[in-house]
Amino acid sequence: MKTTSQLVHLLEPIRPHMEQVERMLCEKLTKVEEPLSSMLLRILSSGKRVRPALVILAGHMFIPPSIKDSTAASSSVKGSEATPISAKGSIAAPSSAKGSIAAPSSAPFYNLAAAVEMMHTATLIHDDLIDEAPLRRGRRTLHTTWPARAAVLAGDYLLAQAASTIAALEHPRLLHIFSQSLCAMCEGEIRQTFISAGRQSPREEYYRSIEAKTASLCAAAMEMAGVLAGADERQIAALHRFGREFGMAFQITDDVLDFVGDEQQLGKPAGSDLRQGMVTLPTLYYLEGSEEVTPVQAVLSGRRDAEHVQAAIEAVRSSGGIEAALAEARVHANQARQALAALPATPARQMLRSLAEYVVERGH
Amino acid sequence: MKTTSQLVHLLEPIRPHMEQVERMLCEKLTKVEEPLSSMLLRILSSGKRVRPALVILAGHMFIPPSIKDSTAASSSVKGSEATPISAKGSIAAPSSAKGSIAAPSSAPFYNLAAAVEMMHTATLIHDDLIDEAPLRRGRRTLHTTWPARAAVLAGDYLLAQAASTIAALEHPRLLHIFSQSLCAMCEGEIRQTFISAGRQSPREEYYRSIEAKTASLCAAAMEMAGVLAGADERQIAALHRFGREFGMAFQITDDVLDFVGDEQQLGKPAGSDLRQGMVTLPTLYYLEGSEEVTPVQAVLSGRRDAEHVQAAIEAVRSSGGIEAALAEARVHANQARQALAALPATPARQMLRSLAEYVVERGH
Repeated sequence: MKTTSQLVHLLEPIRPHMEQVERMLCEKLTKVEEPLSSMLLRILSSGKRVRPALVILAGHMFIPPSIKDSTAASSSVKGSEATPISAKGSIAAPSSAKGSIAAPSSAPFYNLAAAVEMMHTATLIHDDLIDEAPLRRGRRTLHTTWPARAAVLAGDYLLAQAASTIAALEHPRLLHIFSQSLCAMCEGEIRQTFISAGRQSPREEYYRSIEAKTASLCAAAMEMAGVLAGADERQIAALHRFGREFGMAFQITDDVLDFVGDEQQLGKPAGSDLRQGMVTLPTLYYLEGSEEVTPVQAVLSGRRDAEHVQAAIEAVRSSGGIEAALAEARVHANQARQALAALPATPARQMLRSLAEYVVERGH
Repeated sequence: MKTTSQLVHLLEPIRPHMEQVERMLCEKLTKVEEPLSSMLLRILSSGKRVRPALVILAGHMFIPPSIKDSTAASSSVKGSEATPISAKGSIAAPSSAKGSIAAPSSAPFYNLAAAVEMMHTATLIHDDLIDEAPLRRGRRTLHTTWPARAAVLAGDYLLAQAASTIAALEHPRLLHIFSQSLCAMCEGEIRQTFISAGRQSPREEYYRSIEAKTASLCAAAMEMAGVLAGADERQIAALHRFGREFGMAFQITDDVLDFVGDEQQLGKPAGSDLRQGMVTLPTLYYLEGSEEVTPVQAVLSGRRDAEHVQAAIEAVRSSGGIEAALAEARVHANQARQALAALPATPARQMLRSLAEYVVERGH
């Protein structure tokens, strides 16, 4: 299994920009009173920042190099179709990272990236509360160390801050995309919580659920970055498609990792989904090809002790479910890469391509 | 004590508009899947709709009568400074209420009013979960009849719908006001939940808390209506001021009613605030003028059985705390009325004036 250090390496060319996003997140969250400020910063500190990276990379495909960094002008290709890349292979850093004044057109992307990460974290906090999950990103979840009220409020506050940050960008369409994505995420969670199986096939339910949970925000992040960058409608549609397919590949692979990863890599025990009664794609494939009475059925019907869970994990692992799920993830990653064809051929586009490969490779 | 039927009477002239707001709320909430749809509609059905009424009335001060209702043109005063009132004393109904096509400029106000009510209800649902309140508006609260997760999700969904509704109005400033108000409400609740007393006087803490909890959304509702109506900056400032002062008067009176009202009128047992350890203005006045050991101190230090709570309620009731708090509410209501001077002299303005009187009169 590939590790997070590869992600760090992959995002190295945009590190100065990602640092600006961090700075912005800190700035927004140190404004709120203690102890909430520390709580929020602690939760936010452990994210992989995949969604903010999508925003930065999408934006970089469109920002004219002359605005992005005048120091890189000599190496830049003229026009808005290319992004300068320095001799060291990094995408031009914002000038503020070099001690001078920030490029005027980069700040909105940092704000947008921060807003997307805050929204993502808000939904994680509420989801963990809803699912009664004990661990997230290797740490105890908020609602296990603070009263549940803290988790409700922390999530609400992050949503409010995200909405406020996007509203400050003064672009009605951004807010529309943002709020539609939030509605989709809530509806997905609602469906998962309340709707009993039957109306749709379990596989359809699964796809709808991961689309709402992950793909919708990735698509929204890409789409908003395109709107902010002044991309045309065809490009915005391609950005949306990349984000959606990327998100599907990302979530399917995450669901595979829940079976094949170990506790240290996952930041929580393996098999957490199954233990919570969540049926993800590897399990669906397994169930489709198995007898009625299996270790997995035992867990799903409530026997959630360590022994039964371990037997179920082994059963799914040794079935073809893992490989079948990964093959589907690869299909989505390919579709994501295909969507890139409609977008400016820039180093940022190449990085998005690599990112789509990376998310699936994690599962191997 | 004056009752809700007076509010219904007071709002009678805008009833057709309020019915359109209801229709819009239903429309937005029947879209979501069951059982959430029924849950949300049930919770929303019992509100008094004070905030949507503020939006409709604020909007009515600015909509030219010719747009509002062509059928009322004969009785209307020319120009945007006056609102037509029919012979029966009602503000011109939207034409759709009479079976023809809705006036084009009214729909955004219905949307805004619905969004404000959804946001208000979202915060109520999360607050009740946080406060573990058993009753709201005479009914069992959501988190007592459904798992806590339902309350988290229902609140999130309403917030998302409210943001989405406002985003669809395509006016960046509206979203800015909306999200700032949401931030203020979260921060207020956070302060109440986490911050131990000491930094500010208890009275200052109380004022900050009700400002965040109630006054901020009333101010935002009025301000957004003004922005949507194209009011000038001086008028928008006056609308904000009216909303804020109205909200302060409203909440102080609500806090008084918690002592002097009965269970049927309140929709929950009297003394609920004190039972939850919440110190409101009547209690603050009482404590400022009392010895250390009192029935109220007993409740606040944890003795929350019926007998102690009843003794504490009686103690506050028979002190001057009720009258002193109501006098403060009256000051705010007066300031709200004064803010109206900068706004167009219309029947809607007169109704806002009456509404400001009504909220305080409820406490007498």
